Amino acid sequence: MATVKLWTDEDVAADPRVKAVFDDIRATRKTDFVNNMWRALANQPELLEATWARLKQVMVAPSSLDPLTKEMIYLAVSTANSCGYCVHSHTAAARAKGMTDAQYQDFLAVVGMAMQTNALATAMQVPVDPEFQI
Amino acid sequence: MATVKLWTDEDVAADPRVKAVFDDIRATRKTDFVNNMWRALANQPELLEATWARLKQVMVAPSSLDPLTKEMIYLAVSTANSCGYCVHSHTAAARAKGMTDAQYQDFLAVVGMAMQTNALATAMQVPVDPEFQI
Amino acid sequence: MATVKLWTDEDVAADPRVKAVFDDIRATRKTDFVNNMWRALANQPELLEATWARLKQVMVAPSSLDPLTKEMIYLAVSTANSCGYCVHSHTAAARAKGMTDAQYQDFLAVVGMAMQTNALATAMQVPVDPEFQI
Amino acid sequence: MATVKLWTDEDVAADPRVKAVFDDIRATRKTDFVNNMWRALANQPELLEATWARLKQVMVAPSSLDPLTKEMIYLAVSTANSCGYCVHSHTAAARAKGMTDAQYQDFLAVVGMAMQTNALATAMQVPVDPEFQI
Amino acid sequence: MATVKLWTDEDVAADPRVKAVFDDIRATRKTDFVNNMWRALANQPELLEATWARLKQVMVAPSSLDPLTKEMIYLAVSTANSCGYCVHSHTAAARAKGMTDAQYQDFLAVVGMAMQTNALATAMQVPVDPEFQI
Amino acid sequence: MATVKLWTDEDVAADPRVKAVFDDIRATRKTDFVNNMWRALANQPELLEATWARLKQVMVAPSSLDPLTKEMIYLAVSTANSCGYCVHSHTAAARAKGMTDAQYQDFLAVVGMAMQTNALATAMQVPVDPEFQI
Repeated sequence: MATVKLWTDEDVAADPRVKAVFDDIRATRKTDFVNNMWRALANQPELLEATWARLKQVMVAPSSLDPLTKEMIYLAVSTANSCGYCVHSHTAAARAKGMTDAQYQDFLAVVGMAMQTNALATAMQVPVDPEFQI
Repeated sequence: MATVKLWTDEDVAADPRVKAVFDDIRATRKTDFVNNMWRALANQPELLEATWARLKQVMVAPSSLDPLTKEMIYLAVSTANSCGYCVHSHTAAARAKGMTDAQYQDFLAVVGMAMQTNALATAMQVPVDPEFQI
Repeated sequence: MATVKLWTDEDVAADPRVKAVFDDIRATRKTDFVNNMWRALANQPELLEATWARLKQVMVAPSSLDPLTKEMIYLAVSTANSCGYCVHSHTAAARAKGMTDAQYQDFLAVVGMAMQTNALATAMQVPVDPEFQI
Repeated sequence: MATVKLWTDEDVAADPRVKAVFDDIRATRKTDFVNNMWRALANQPELLEATWARLKQVMVAPSSLDPLTKEMIYLAVSTANSCGYCVHSHTAAARAKGMTDAQYQDFLAVVGMAMQTNALATAMQVPVDPEFQI
Repeated sequence: MATVKLWTDEDVAADPRVKAVFDDIRATRKTDFVNNMWRALANQPELLEATWARLKQVMVAPSSLDPLTKEMIYLAVSTANSCGYCVHSHTAAARAKGMTDAQYQDFLAVVGMAMQTNALATAMQVPVDPEFQI
Repeated sequence: MATVKLWTDEDVAADPRVKAVFDDIRATRKTDFVNNMWRALANQPELLEATWARLKQVMVAPSSLDPLTKEMIYLAVSTANSCGYCVHSHTAAARAKGMTDAQYQDFLAVVGMAMQTNALATAMQVPVDPEFQI
């Protein structure tokens, strides 16, 4: 289904550059499971390294936003972009980070509301209020 | 600039159906300021009522997500949809609800990361892992 | 504001290839007004010719859909794509073709509804029902 | 495939709040068939109620636009948003409401034309003509 | 899976108008293989003819851009639009036209970078520099 | 217009962390001009550093794709995402890197074609050919 080969653990073991990234993913996430996104990116080692390094910085390192809030922001973008893979992986991640059913319902309600008013504001070409300008 | 007339307070005062919504917006938000989105929607009273009623339910009523988290989810969708008006109004709203500079930076970083990996997952048509399926 | 020069009537008059297209636009639409889209496309004569020829076929020639319905479909796509210019020009066109205020309200309501449910179906990755498959 | 459970008729029967919505869907549409969108939304009863109530108002209640025109507007948005589920369900709905093969061809031609000119107007950042401003 | 019938070679042979297009696709591409896009478009003969004629002009006829560059531009748009079919067909086409693994990696990196900075520029509503205006 | 302050050269000079990035932008690009994107990102120093470091790697460092091809890929994504700022800055960049009027016309034609066929493939939910699968 993918347009590239998905690397197996054997493929990874044979390539030190890719193996180093996979080892860090496993150590950072404290699980042996490495999802297909990284097995696809393994075909492009520079991009694999850069993507993981940035993801680790943005999503794993301590920040002013808690992990669940970041997952929901990620999921909101992925939904607006119609990225099926991303929706699946970040819904799973949000649940793993404690998203309750009630929070998921509220998340969906906010995303749906935003989509709707985005279209209305665009359709009517509403001008920005001076009060919103800095 | 808009494709519809923006209703002034005088226009609103002359139309009881629109006035009722504007009164409720002002009372709910505890401010006399009503932004252009509602002044544009005033041309379509049924849509005005339905949009405000739902927005009040989703964004104002108590929920399992705190108000700032909801604003950031809203802003993430608005950014992915390239809605300039919505970006302005919901950035202002997020700040009014306490978003710090550090949180805004982290928000931008997450949105940028999501946009990038959305494109990579789509470009490589990465198949969903069985582990992500319920 | 544009990334290309907008051709004036004098520019057009000096270029037979572009002039032929502008003459046909004016004759077809029965108005001397030629909007900026074509003044921008005049920089790329092959693209100008191809775009106008196709637009004339799709939007002007008799078809199984009436002109207003086609304008509203065009406007729906333009809204979803956040194309400000297109929203302006096709809202004007829809009104010129008889769109009433009530129809515009209903149009906005349908677009808003579709945006919202698009996001919900994508967020939950709802599988297609066998009943919808041919 | 979905990120949520799809409710069976047995699940629905056991939950009065969800059952009330499903009963109304069946009565309104005069068919026993309830598509997966609602079986997914059943996990979020408040969102289920609000979405169905609004959809019924926008798409089923009498309005200034005929049912087929509304379905084609809905389908145009769903296409621009790349929502596969929505494309399937609303193509089926449009056909059920009488869309002919000729109309479907014209619909596709308009959507394709709009997509193309949206990109051209955006790429050249064509400024809005004063004639289009109200 | 499609919302329309996919025409077999037998169906095509029985319809002179569609057969003429398929014959030209095969002759132009120097292969007997005709992909599903055309088998779906065969249901709409006018649209089939117009789409193939334009595709042949834009993608096959000699131009100022080499064939691989055009495929990568096509693929970039298809990725941003989340069109799975288009991503598959144009990745295959780019490879057939000589795209190396290194070029594919660089392509993905550019697309990812663009997606990210698009979101940042939109989120901050960065005003266009006078230096970029013509 | 922006949702953040645009840093002047004086602001930059007073902040060593931001100044280091601006100095590198100027040295790398061999010009004193620093566009607004960076003046907006200056408010978020970590994001500024990460974005510039990655942009320099992807767009400036030697790669398997020539600079103009990369700019056109960037511009294609920016167009599909309706990012006005990005369209302006990357059209200027493409021209600075030698894009001719003929190439720009061909670029626009490819983008327009892709947008159109993306919508057609999505609207008909065309299934991926086995021949395109690896």
